[in-house]
Amino acid sequence: MERTLIKDLGGKVGQEVSISGWISVRRDQGKMVFFDFRDRTGFVQGVVLPASGAIEVAKELRSEYVVEVEGKVNQRPEKNRNEKVQNGDIELEVLDLTVLAKAEPLPFDMSLDGYNLDLTTELDHRALTLRHPRLQAIFKVQATIIDSFREFMKSQDFFEFQAPAIVPATAEGGAEVFQVEYFDKKAYLSQSPQLYKQIVMTAFERVFSVNKVFRAEPSATTRHITEFVSLDAEMAFIKSWRDIRDMSEETVRYILGVVQNKHAKELELLGATLPVMLDTTPTLSLTEAQEKIEAKTGRTVMGEKDLSSQDEQDICDIIKEETGSDFVYVYGYPTRQKPFYVYPNPEHPEFNEGVDLLCRGREWLSGGRRINDYAQLMEHVQKWEMDPKKIEMFLEAFRYGAPPEGGFAFGAERMTMQILGLKNVREAAMFPRDMNRIDQTLSEEK
Amino acid sequence: MERTLIKDLGGKVGQEVSISGWISVRRDQGKMVFFDFRDRTGFVQGVVLPASGAIEVAKELRSEYVVEVEGKVNQRPEKNRNEKVQNGDIELEVLDLTVLAKAEPLPFDMSLDGYNLDLTTELDHRALTLRHPRLQAIFKVQATIIDSFREFMKSQDFFEFQAPAIVPATAEGGAEVFQVEYFDKKAYLSQSPQLYKQIVMTAFERVFSVNKVFRAEPSATTRHITEFVSLDAEMAFIKSWRDIRDMSEETVRYILGVVQNKHAKELELLGATLPVMLDTTPTLSLTEAQEKIEAKTGRTVMGEKDLSSQDEQDICDIIKEETGSDFVYVYGYPTRQKPFYVYPNPEHPEFNEGVDLLCRGREWLSGGRRINDYAQLMEHVQKWEMDPKKIEMFLEAFRYGAPPEGGFAFGAERMTMQILGLKNVREAAMFPRDMNRIDQTLSEEK
Repeated sequence: MERTLIKDLGGKVGQEVSISGWISVRRDQGKMVFFDFRDRTGFVQGVVLPASGAIEVAKELRSEYVVEVEGKVNQRPEKNRNEKVQNGDIELEVLDLTVLAKAEPLPFDMSLDGYNLDLTTELDHRALTLRHPRLQAIFKVQATIIDSFREFMKSQDFFEFQAPAIVPATAEGGAEVFQVEYFDKKAYLSQSPQLYKQIVMTAFERVFSVNKVFRAEPSATTRHITEFVSLDAEMAFIKSWRDIRDMSEETVRYILGVVQNKHAKELELLGATLPVMLDTTPTLSLTEAQEKIEAKTGRTVMGEKDLSSQDEQDICDIIKEETGSDFVYVYGYPTRQKPFYVYPNPEHPEFNEGVDLLCRGREWLSGGRRINDYAQLMEHVQKWEMDPKKIEMFLEAFRYGAPPEGGFAFGAERMTMQILGLKNVREAAMFPRDMNRIDQTLSEEK
Repeated sequence: MERTLIKDLGGKVGQEVSISGWISVRRDQGKMVFFDFRDRTGFVQGVVLPASGAIEVAKELRSEYVVEVEGKVNQRPEKNRNEKVQNGDIELEVLDLTVLAKAEPLPFDMSLDGYNLDLTTELDHRALTLRHPRLQAIFKVQATIIDSFREFMKSQDFFEFQAPAIVPATAEGGAEVFQVEYFDKKAYLSQSPQLYKQIVMTAFERVFSVNKVFRAEPSATTRHITEFVSLDAEMAFIKSWRDIRDMSEETVRYILGVVQNKHAKELELLGATLPVMLDTTPTLSLTEAQEKIEAKTGRTVMGEKDLSSQDEQDICDIIKEETGSDFVYVYGYPTRQKPFYVYPNPEHPEFNEGVDLLCRGREWLSGGRRINDYAQLMEHVQKWEMDPKKIEMFLEAFRYGAPPEGGFAFGAERMTMQILGLKNVREAAMFPRDMNRIDQTLSEEK
């Protein structure tokens, strides 16, 4: 018999069907056996009656056994209906049951409500815990964040390219770069597709990429992993940094809209509420933000080169109170605090045209206008004391005519964490890597 | 004035417009100056008349200058029309011209017809050569291959996940793996998402990934690069390896269809013809293929453990002649020649249920059914003399109930090369890495 997906059973009351999936729970109730069956589309309750030919095999089954079940879809009696769960109004009367694969006894409770592991144990058993609906909800939302980013970029005529992971010694490379044994030479893992997306922008005008980047962060905070998915955009022929602000705002708005429409169930399961984005997000210069923070909190922050974590929290709280917006843009950072390619404000060259999007006390996204004039770029290369040979390919792109341009970037795992209100970025990475873990905890002798 | 894209000029005859883009070519003709302007949507000819206010600045411009041009869209006189090129029936009469960025004199001819570089020079100047329409055509087709893979997978209810790039010491790791200095420990770059996609399959049933993989191939052939994009699929609840064959066939069929529909212009520019795929692609066991090759060529190949390059060419030629199909599936390879996870044929366990898709003498795609039974998997782990501790996460997924399953994979760059008939896979990688090159040729002293 053709397989029916569990989500489609409600439309087949009275019919005999075949389903395939896992046993989530078995409950023996006297002479009958009840099951919660699970496939990729959800759950359904099954019952094996005492007279069923499957009753003997049913008693031997455990959680996570993989089975093919033939059965009849019955309406549940009124008193047994549960409107709050999927298929709460039906039940599968099991007629035949075939074991497709056995499972060893579980090391912990994997049931919908009984699951309760600390993060370390959860990650130590990622291959198993990934089956839990709560964890699946996180990665379903993440897939949607990434996919709706692509969708929006394509709708705006951006071209997707593949940024490299292995890079030569770069001028940007600092302590936080991983080194690769590259035959008898040295290479490095890319920390950002920044220079590559700028190169490709000079050929395709509007480009984006979804690629892994790597940071050798020697810190075990809740916000750092060593490998993550960077979502990057870069666009030519802008009039000012405000075009970047606007495009990034519409990108985030689109992503939030798709998540809201597609994942009501997952958001509820995770207890997550999406942040409020107004038609126009409040936008302040760093100096204006600092003024507001001082006025509100009395803390002295004017003249600081960047927002501290406390500042980020404060300015988000202030803007939320003033306008109802969970989001706020802050632009205009001290030029020398940021990378060489960021465009200085022509009227106040000590401030640049970089712009960050903050939400609920955290940076969500970072971007800005870049220098496109070759002479100006070379001046910065000198001031920043960089070796032009190490970025020759990048410089070539700008030597031969590059339009006014800018772009933005954000990390998929952090945005997942922030949208869902997770406490640790590791929850938002399917296979998180940090200084102590690659799949398993790294042993000392390696 | 609002920017008009060059592709939209044909609909604005008689109107004044503003375009932004690059100067591809300047031609001085007596008192007039002609330009070919280029933006991301194509080309248009511009003319600066002697009386134009822009005539002085026009004479100073060179190829690849970035300009904003205000002008009037005129119908060309009948005798000057060229139906073969984009906008061959119109001309932009330049009224005003603003330089947005200058360009140094080009190191070589970048014009549409004059461009003619050897591959080494082309790659040494990737930042510039990427602007040429022929190269752009390659990467536009590649973006479509990757995107239509995603599109088809999603239409079949596959879930996209992000496979990791950094991996711990794995049982599969051989000489061709790159080593990473991971803090004070060792890690490696992933050679394939194989084990991860199987893990995620046990949670989501149908999964796919588009991720970088890495091979430390110490060979400088036309088919090898060290970093490439692997397109991977894995699906649960299959009945046999034929489900994998079928899904991979429909995937390739879909990709070819989208490329055909979307890229007629690019295919023409590259002189590429798509291969013929029949409703049902001929499918042979390795033994049947070897019989055909012997019968046709007289070469002794029966009993060989795999198809040689010559065999691949011969079987493709034979099938093309017999059926008209450019594609042929070959399945059933000697079990011990392939990885431990490949499913042995239950009736002839010396042959496995791996399957490859060949086309025009080359392997396009590889897949097969995998072992899902934990006891059988552990038997193979022992026979293959692997350390189970090194694949503990993978084994855990199968210890707790994994359905009958299989999958397939192919490389984006190779498929681009093969679809377009390119001679070297480096042409199909925007930033190709090999043992001698990462962006630039690697110097000896590094």
